[in-house]
Amino acid sequence: MLKKQNIVSSLLSLLLLYFCTFSNFFNFTNALWPIPQQWSKGSTTIVLYPSVDIRLSIISPTIEDLSIKTHTIFNSAKNRFQQSIIQEKYVSPNVKFNISTYQPKILQIVEIEINDGNSELGLGVNESYCLSVPDNNDDNKPLTVKITAETIYGALHGLTTLSQLIYYDNDFLKHDIHHERYIPFAPHKIVDYPSFSYRGLLLDTSRNYYSVDDILKTIETMSWNKLNVFHWHIVDATSWPVVSKKFPKLSEKGAYDPVTMIYTEQDIKIIDEFAKLRGIRVIPEFDMPGHTHSISKGYPDIIACINEQPRWDLYAAEPPSGQLNPAKEETYEFIRALIPEMASYFSDKYYHAGGDEIKTKCWEEDEDVENYLANNLGSSSETLLAKIIEEVQNTVISSNKIPMFWQETVDTHNLAITKDAIIQVWFGNDTVKNVIKKGYKVIVGSAEYWYLDCGHGGWVGNNINGNSWCDPYKTWQKMYSFNPINGLTKSEAKLVIGGETLLWSEQADPNNFEQLIWPRASAAAEVLWTGPQNLDVNEALPRLLDFRFRLVARGVKAEPLQPLWCVLNGGCDMPNF
Amino acid sequence: MLKKQNIVSSLLSLLLLYFCTFSNFFNFTNALWPIPQQWSKGSTTIVLYPSVDIRLSIISPTIEDLSIKTHTIFNSAKNRFQQSIIQEKYVSPNVKFNISTYQPKILQIVEIEINDGNSELGLGVNESYCLSVPDNNDDNKPLTVKITAETIYGALHGLTTLSQLIYYDNDFLKHDIHHERYIPFAPHKIVDYPSFSYRGLLLDTSRNYYSVDDILKTIETMSWNKLNVFHWHIVDATSWPVVSKKFPKLSEKGAYDPVTMIYTEQDIKIIDEFAKLRGIRVIPEFDMPGHTHSISKGYPDIIACINEQPRWDLYAAEPPSGQLNPAKEETYEFIRALIPEMASYFSDKYYHAGGDEIKTKCWEEDEDVENYLANNLGSSSETLLAKIIEEVQNTVISSNKIPMFWQETVDTHNLAITKDAIIQVWFGNDTVKNVIKKGYKVIVGSAEYWYLDCGHGGWVGNNINGNSWCDPYKTWQKMYSFNPINGLTKSEAKLVIGGETLLWSEQADPNNFEQLIWPRASAAAEVLWTGPQNLDVNEALPRLLDFRFRLVARGVKAEPLQPLWCVLNGGCDMPNF
Repeated sequence: MLKKQNIVSSLLSLLLLYFCTFSNFFNFTNALWPIPQQWSKGSTTIVLYPSVDIRLSIISPTIEDLSIKTHTIFNSAKNRFQQSIIQEKYVSPNVKFNISTYQPKILQIVEIEINDGNSELGLGVNESYCLSVPDNNDDNKPLTVKITAETIYGALHGLTTLSQLIYYDNDFLKHDIHHERYIPFAPHKIVDYPSFSYRGLLLDTSRNYYSVDDILKTIETMSWNKLNVFHWHIVDATSWPVVSKKFPKLSEKGAYDPVTMIYTEQDIKIIDEFAKLRGIRVIPEFDMPGHTHSISKGYPDIIACINEQPRWDLYAAEPPSGQLNPAKEETYEFIRALIPEMASYFSDKYYHAGGDEIKTKCWEEDEDVENYLANNLGSSSETLLAKIIEEVQNTVISSNKIPMFWQETVDTHNLAITKDAIIQVWFGNDTVKNVIKKGYKVIVGSAEYWYLDCGHGGWVGNNINGNSWCDPYKTWQKMYSFNPINGLTKSEAKLVIGGETLLWSEQADPNNFEQLIWPRASAAAEVLWTGPQNLDVNEALPRLLDFRFRLVARGVKAEPLQPLWCVLNGGCDMPNF
Repeated sequence: MLKKQNIVSSLLSLLLLYFCTFSNFFNFTNALWPIPQQWSKGSTTIVLYPSVDIRLSIISPTIEDLSIKTHTIFNSAKNRFQQSIIQEKYVSPNVKFNISTYQPKILQIVEIEINDGNSELGLGVNESYCLSVPDNNDDNKPLTVKITAETIYGALHGLTTLSQLIYYDNDFLKHDIHHERYIPFAPHKIVDYPSFSYRGLLLDTSRNYYSVDDILKTIETMSWNKLNVFHWHIVDATSWPVVSKKFPKLSEKGAYDPVTMIYTEQDIKIIDEFAKLRGIRVIPEFDMPGHTHSISKGYPDIIACINEQPRWDLYAAEPPSGQLNPAKEETYEFIRALIPEMASYFSDKYYHAGGDEIKTKCWEEDEDVENYLANNLGSSSETLLAKIIEEVQNTVISSNKIPMFWQETVDTHNLAITKDAIIQVWFGNDTVKNVIKKGYKVIVGSAEYWYLDCGHGGWVGNNINGNSWCDPYKTWQKMYSFNPINGLTKSEAKLVIGGETLLWSEQADPNNFEQLIWPRASAAAEVLWTGPQNLDVNEALPRLLDFRFRLVARGVKAEPLQPLWCVLNGGCDMPNF
């Protein structure tokens, strides 16, 4: 008995030795990111035709219901996928071609089947999909991947997942294999759907300017992370890059450069269309009434407390100060004319109207406001705020949009925001709970967890230690640990429709923004797609390392997380003391 | 009397109004970085021939003393300068062409005069220069810049400064001026010299690999900052990218990729030569006996405690663990054979031999060390350390090099390091003082101030909060505030020959290293060139903002420090509450 135990134990040791010597430190399979809800895999390696054919079919009711839009999205996705198969040469540091699991089967066809050929991209659209990658074929049929989805948007995610299953190897010829791309661990069976319907990224293009190409590249990278909302914080106190036909001086005077650092209607439509083809909604934010100093460059009459110095801190959250003047009729005329124009440039149903970080002192020292308050008994800066936000909200709604606002509107100020609105919370879960209790749908993006810009010290000022309110840098682990529904009841949690990571651009511009966004926004993307339950940094680390290398292979300047040695070998965890 | 006062006061207000309306927020002149020791300027704007002629002459003793080396350096600098004049189109956000100060004078010639045509680049070489840019010419002579210097290396700095005086304007034609580059605030008279003779940057190419081009670009950017030592931390525990003829398995097994992620002798010589042409010394570091796990991949017999897991922390400062085995004769043979080969690849007189972060437990658990200690009465891990460092030092010296070591060798361990050596201190000023008291020359680079890699959280491990020992991120202000000679007497301060900022590559690679280095290393460069006395972040901020834009214009992905609004307007300082 004892002897038998010894033999078993010796065999186990040998097996372990084999495992440690001949396989990677990580027990590694395809590094899917975000990881699908259900995923079973096998142990076969198959190869891929570079000219894999992609076909689309509609289940019901008939092929006539395939809208032109769906058809355009499909064709665009098909082209991208076929291009990527030809161009992408991703050699993973972890996943290596294994001749012993190779079956000479060639994947030739991707068959996409959607149920509804006429669905519109929008909040709550069905994004689920099933993906099956076979490792064998019936006698006469070519090897075929099947993606089934309710909508074309689910099908896009299926293709994204499929693209992550594929690896490149330039050593195939030594095995006399005349293909260069392979899928290991086939067959794959994946059932997948998002945990949250709003999965966003905010980019601030006012504090520093980004070109249209920078934005397109960001949206493309978002799609690889199954993020689906580009929250375009397009204007702010520092600059107004958007060209308005009704108020041309906004960009002529308020952009950093009226020719080279602007977004025209055409630019916006290019971006909006590019995003839609990737299942990504573009929601613009025109923050009002605060953060509007840039309007004063062209239209000084409607802005109060313009660039107060040096005590800007009394008038604004950061320099330069300036708020829409709520005591002037011209301000309301401006709102009623500008919002419909700006809203018309974007196709999504939602329009973010801001409403954050108001300083009442800005108004209280303004002569027009003083007169207004003296002439209107019972009025105050608070009633003026309510008045201006009401005008903003009504104009958004009459422009056929649903408004979004920052938390301050309902949490700090208790303004009469429609219950249709989405409230964006940048504080923690307590504020989420408060806002939900008031009956609002919420998106989250806690400054403590999901602000991508924090951690490079204070940009304002000249103090040597240069701390910032939102230090330290949020590591990917910190971002990954954020639970959007922490502390909420089940019914409360239903009102958290999603969240977003945010890149404010005080210390970001085209030179460093990709490094700040990726791969940390990927960590948030997995929280929002897969859901915060059962996430584990230990399981995630090797997958994220690998996914980050795939992003780099695709041209994204994603920040490295560890020495390559750790990527290849593991063994870089904190020891348990 | 009262009336007169009123008139004066009104005039002053008008003047102030004029100043605030028509000039920039900053009272801005050419943004020289680092700022010269003495600099007087005028108020004239002149323009530049794109084909400006650059001439070199030698004062004494005769033209025959111009060495080929000096001639080569001059020609290379001349070509670079002429190329940059044609290619660089730097439009400053702050300095604008001012037609009212324009004199139609065309700068045609740069005359460089050096005293010693035969000087060798090395520690303490004379780098001073005088630069004069005229705003007028004698009747028959073309407008000529004069740079006078003791050596060609001083002259290089003069050209660097001159290049920063030049701005581009594409609006000249509207003034009917047919040149595109101008120098404002002429005449300039500059007398300049470095405060410290060693002004370095460390790049760690082991934890993650950088291509030869990445390194060349970094060295080029260093030269624009008047930095003069590239401390190449070329190998470490994680990988050994250097190809050795004597020990080929070092890179065959120890590089991340034995073909694509290596440095050959030829690569090194290209880098060394490229640097010398820019007045930059390349000092390699081959750290021993710690940080040598990568050697174990090819030569496991001479490394103790190879990759101990999971308690790597007991054996090394970071994973993977491994130290040269001091109990084995093969180790000493390895040292005696490897160092001369590696030393021969580099032209500088100095060779950094490491000596940091030894963990004695690594040796104490090694069987060979145990036997050695048992057989050699009075021996200990400390005497073994002394023995191995002695071997290293003797080999460095017999290879005609002067050794550099990390502080631990003399501060922690009190080893018999030659007084010729330079000791590198990465702790604070207390350690600097200790090491100096022992009679050593010192270079500084406090982890608290000058580590460029800190602040992105812990890379080791999976803890959610992910703090790191060297958090937070060191802002440029923090770096700028570091005084290398703080707390030292005058005679002690003389032994501080300089310092360096350091980029360790746990979380850096070619995707983000430029953003981590620049412009923060520029802040340190000014401390080391201009000297820590009289530096003021308020004065420096607009200059650094402008200089950073020049770096960006030259293709360097330098991190932005503030929104462009602040660059253009100022007004982004911390208010005094």
